[in-house]
Amino acid sequence: MDGRRVEHLLTTPTTPKELISAESEGGTSFPNFLFFVLHKERAHSERWNGPAPPKNPWRYRARTGMLFLMLIREATDADWPTIWAFFHPIVVAGETFTYPTDMDQDQARQGWLLSKPDRTVVALDEHGTVVGTAKMNRNHMGNADHIASASYMVDPAHNGRGVGRALCEYSLGWARQAGYTAMQFNAVVATNTRAIGLYESLGFAVVGTLERGFRHPAHGHVGLRIMYRTLDEDPTR
Amino acid sequence: MDGRRVEHLLTTPTTPKELISAESEGGTSFPNFLFFVLHKERAHSERWNGPAPPKNPWRYRARTGMLFLMLIREATDADWPTIWAFFHPIVVAGETFTYPTDMDQDQARQGWLLSKPDRTVVALDEHGTVVGTAKMNRNHMGNADHIASASYMVDPAHNGRGVGRALCEYSLGWARQAGYTAMQFNAVVATNTRAIGLYESLGFAVVGTLERGFRHPAHGHVGLRIMYRTLDEDPTR
Repeated sequence: MDGRRVEHLLTTPTTPKELISAESEGGTSFPNFLFFVLHKERAHSERWNGPAPPKNPWRYRARTGMLFLMLIREATDADWPTIWAFFHPIVVAGETFTYPTDMDQDQARQGWLLSKPDRTVVALDEHGTVVGTAKMNRNHMGNADHIASASYMVDPAHNGRGVGRALCEYSLGWARQAGYTAMQFNAVVATNTRAIGLYESLGFAVVGTLERGFRHPAHGHVGLRIMYRTLDEDPTR
Repeated sequence: MDGRRVEHLLTTPTTPKELISAESEGGTSFPNFLFFVLHKERAHSERWNGPAPPKNPWRYRARTGMLFLMLIREATDADWPTIWAFFHPIVVAGETFTYPTDMDQDQARQGWLLSKPDRTVVALDEHGTVVGTAKMNRNHMGNADHIASASYMVDPAHNGRGVGRALCEYSLGWARQAGYTAMQFNAVVATNTRAIGLYESLGFAVVGTLERGFRHPAHGHVGLRIMYRTLDEDPTR
């Protein structure tokens, strides 16, 4: 979906259900998703203590003045250069991911752009700009293959807009639809408190910490947290 | 090393240092190892409350009447059929490993027989029989690549002889020599209390549990434990 199409949806009254249906790829694959409604609800119930938001959802703006509309769709090879533009500096910084800091582009693309039954998506803002990406996959085999995992990367230029939250919510939905009943994050750097807080708000708990498990370039050896939640119930809804 | 050679070493007085040197592959690789001394010491200090063991180490027997002598050496393709003979039923049982229970032999061999810098070994008893195997490898990438992991499988026909302990000790030594400073087990089934107890006795702690993380064929959903230890100090020595 290009930016014009998003713009069109943004300015044309239509129901979320129609949008989702329009974006679905059909078959058994998890549909692309407009993350408008979720964000409206959250903004009101959790972030806002003031007046209720305006009635017209397509025109709704948070206090920061930013629209929460976001399209999440399957990533394609054509998205890669845009992903790599923010992916690479995040990996080079070596503060949040357990990826080789000298990872080259081929390695990165191969590791990030997954094919079915796993899934990699991009989040587009209202201009059709790729503002983040997520990959989601099985985390264990055999009798533990009901545990999924996911990773998220948000373009720092678009931080604070709820992109990470939208991607995380999307991946939980994907995992449920794909038949997973739990999700585990294997390696969340202890100093990445924003991510930990986000995951906790979405029902994850830190189930364990690998002490001195991560060599942070600024903070030295810090913990590496394992976060986990089951998908039987959804505390965020 | 064939059974005759082990038998020879068993009956010929020689020092552990000479044995280790004789078995070393040279270069930077971790040497093959005769696990005699460690086991003698443990048997005396931890298992025995009775009389001290006899003086001649090569003739030393535990109360069970079994020799603790064990050779651990790098696994070869030629070992695979012997490994598969006990590996397969363990995987099919689906009680202790997160491997597909319908795993075929090629999958298994590819996943188990690792090449450098990782390592796969077999443990031979005094007759030269393969009684267990272990693989050891890096567990994380990037700024967490100082964390190793390992997996162990012991032929149930040879349980209770300290094979698992010897393999685990070997892998800790390998990890230290390879420059790792921590070891993590990603998925220890909660009902596998013998393994958990063994790992705890070797300095590991359960750092977290994935509740309902494993579908045990007899016990239903049980926890999947994450176990971890740093390698800075060695509480077992």
